[in-house]
Amino acid sequence: MREIEGGVAAPAGFWAAGAQAGLKAAGGYDVALLYSDCPAAGAAVYTRNAVRAHPLALTAAHLADGAARAVVVNSGNANACMGERGERDARAMAQAAARALELPETDVLAASTGVIGQPLPLERVCAGIAAAAAAIGTLRAGAGEAGLAARKAEAARTAALAIMTTDLAVKEQAWEMAGPAGPVRLGIMAKGSGMIHPNMGTMLGFITTDADLPPPLMQDMLRAAVDDSFNMATVDGDTSTNDMVIMLANGRSGVRPAAGAEDRFRRLLNAACVAMARAIARDGEGATKLLETRVRGAASRVDARRIARAVCGSSLVKTAMYGEDANWGRIIAAAGYAGADFNPDGFALSLNGLAVAAAGRGLPFAEAEAKARLSSAEIVIDISLADGEAEAVAWGCDLTPGYVDINAAYRS
Amino acid sequence: MREIEGGVAAPAGFWAAGAQAGLKAAGGYDVALLYSDCPAAGAAVYTRNAVRAHPLALTAAHLADGAARAVVVNSGNANACMGERGERDARAMAQAAARALELPETDVLAASTGVIGQPLPLERVCAGIAAAAAAIGTLRAGAGEAGLAARKAEAARTAALAIMTTDLAVKEQAWEMAGPAGPVRLGIMAKGSGMIHPNMGTMLGFITTDADLPPPLMQDMLRAAVDDSFNMATVDGDTSTNDMVIMLANGRSGVRPAAGAEDRFRRLLNAACVAMARAIARDGEGATKLLETRVRGAASRVDARRIARAVCGSSLVKTAMYGEDANWGRIIAAAGYAGADFNPDGFALSLNGLAVAAAGRGLPFAEAEAKARLSSAEIVIDISLADGEAEAVAWGCDLTPGYVDINAAYRS
Repeated sequence: MREIEGGVAAPAGFWAAGAQAGLKAAGGYDVALLYSDCPAAGAAVYTRNAVRAHPLALTAAHLADGAARAVVVNSGNANACMGERGERDARAMAQAAARALELPETDVLAASTGVIGQPLPLERVCAGIAAAAAAIGTLRAGAGEAGLAARKAEAARTAALAIMTTDLAVKEQAWEMAGPAGPVRLGIMAKGSGMIHPNMGTMLGFITTDADLPPPLMQDMLRAAVDDSFNMATVDGDTSTNDMVIMLANGRSGVRPAAGAEDRFRRLLNAACVAMARAIARDGEGATKLLETRVRGAASRVDARRIARAVCGSSLVKTAMYGEDANWGRIIAAAGYAGADFNPDGFALSLNGLAVAAAGRGLPFAEAEAKARLSSAEIVIDISLADGEAEAVAWGCDLTPGYVDINAAYRS
Repeated sequence: MREIEGGVAAPAGFWAAGAQAGLKAAGGYDVALLYSDCPAAGAAVYTRNAVRAHPLALTAAHLADGAARAVVVNSGNANACMGERGERDARAMAQAAARALELPETDVLAASTGVIGQPLPLERVCAGIAAAAAAIGTLRAGAGEAGLAARKAEAARTAALAIMTTDLAVKEQAWEMAGPAGPVRLGIMAKGSGMIHPNMGTMLGFITTDADLPPPLMQDMLRAAVDDSFNMATVDGDTSTNDMVIMLANGRSGVRPAAGAEDRFRRLLNAACVAMARAIARDGEGATKLLETRVRGAASRVDARRIARAVCGSSLVKTAMYGEDANWGRIIAAAGYAGADFNPDGFALSLNGLAVAAAGRGLPFAEAEAKARLSSAEIVIDISLADGEAEAVAWGCDLTPGYVDINAAYRS
């Protein structure tokens, strides 16, 4: 398994490009197209918010047959809470992409991210779609030419840029895994930042692979991977109306992964999703530190997950970590209100390897040593319980004045 | 029903005083005693945090008989997560108060608030208890003298000061209600600020009354009042290990309230708890605005409560209100992830009377007008649903750079 260049366009047969359609006040890329040049299976996981943006319904309908060949995405406007106009606009986006890529409309999926409740500037979005499709067409026309891989990767990067809102870092990755039947590739891009909280979805994620995956197996693999990655990442406890993860598999490698839980492809998919979830938490709005909470010894997986997420989500823990203050009482308090069953007297805790509590009580530790450990850009909160064997890991970030500045000023 | 002076010492037979025992870095009052000079019935509601501070177990045990005559409270130290030493210390506090007030130990309840996991400086706490008891003794010795009511009220205020941690405003109130059987009085004091979230408890609250209340009726009244007040207040989503509301009723007025839901005493108790809950939200750490979210037309009370609390608790809503930005999409998104069942197309919303959304969609409004409405120190978020008749109200505050400053710097 090795990391390669090319993001979502790294797997064979996939192409991606971004365009600048003028949808974001700050300018930059804001429309992305993702395309497979041969038939592909599709799967998706959606936000659990009761209010769902219009592109989600369209994507779910177009995935009913388990097949899709393209995804169109815009940032800068959520296309949510717009009634029938929103439905029409989501469909118009898909139609524009289908026309430009010469596909049936039902092979195109759609996603949007940005401000809720404002009409989509459809003309600009369609111009962006045409531009992105033209960029993909130019790349494809150059197939076989020297430097194509680098140009493809560059275009895929503009797609990864186009899905960003308040993100500071572009989030894309690609992997190649060798195997007896030949290599298989997986690419991923995501956007995160604010409104990130574990009720699935929690952000936008797009995964491509040239593995050959039957849709039900892919859906199962995707759900499991999302459950242990994006659903364990929290920035501010808010779950958006728009978030989803879409996966396309076009089978071009000829490699068909096995169905078992221990299959290497499944592990690759999980690792790729975890890498994105960590990147999203690290890039949380205003964040200066990545928090990783590991829970061990819980009575059940549900308990472990609840505790890990509650600790990563606690405003008091997040501010203490920003302040580099080993205020472990806030961590045990957050575990206590997580809705999990555990014995407080079996609670042990370390912060970046420094043991600060055991048997439910504080241990003596040097404040200077604690401060030094917490000055790191990554803080591992290690919680050990005495209730069983279950484990979970969650990711979050510190809560800083920057978070407030960003969200008090920006209508997103 | 009229507001009177005297806080928790306003009802007949109650006395309260604070002392300065040196428990808080910033100094000031930090030990409080509350005392009834005749037998009283007692009731309490506790935090739902799985990790409970040591004084809570003691209070629950001493209330098993439904009777109590005194409460001892310290701030600056939570006496939580201290194992057997914590249990001994809580008991030693109650014993010191019992000795000083010449009561059986089981008539004394205890509460603590402050940093978790640090040993209680018991000697200083006991000195504070002795000082507060002496202050009460001096007041009682002056019974019948001119100016006693003012001196009693002043002492009760020092008790209300002594339970504060990062609170900026002292929170106490007292009411007198006339009736055919004579007047009845109710006093209340509370502390809030950080770690306030609706899973009962959520803070410390102490209620006194000279009404004659059988313990089961009082417990029922208290639980109902807390449910619609303290349990609907949120500052940061964190529920503490220490929070509880204690109520004592000594019957000195000779007035026995009726058991019905519409009884005037019950309404008084509810109003007093709501006033404290609002005061706590308004005084949230770093807060500049009080948020009140009213939900109407929900399918059930549970749905209405979930939506009201989710909106008041959303970091994105809280920062938008700080920024005086009518970003209503964040409000509908928060309602959407509240775990409530509602029809998004029936969602209507106004902010301080300005309608910004109806039928699940945005309405045109002037940004300048919205900004002007949101510049107020109190913001009412009015949500109207089309699913039924159920209602709920929740209180919260904006999220500001001040919240981060306080909690990054202060080990609480």
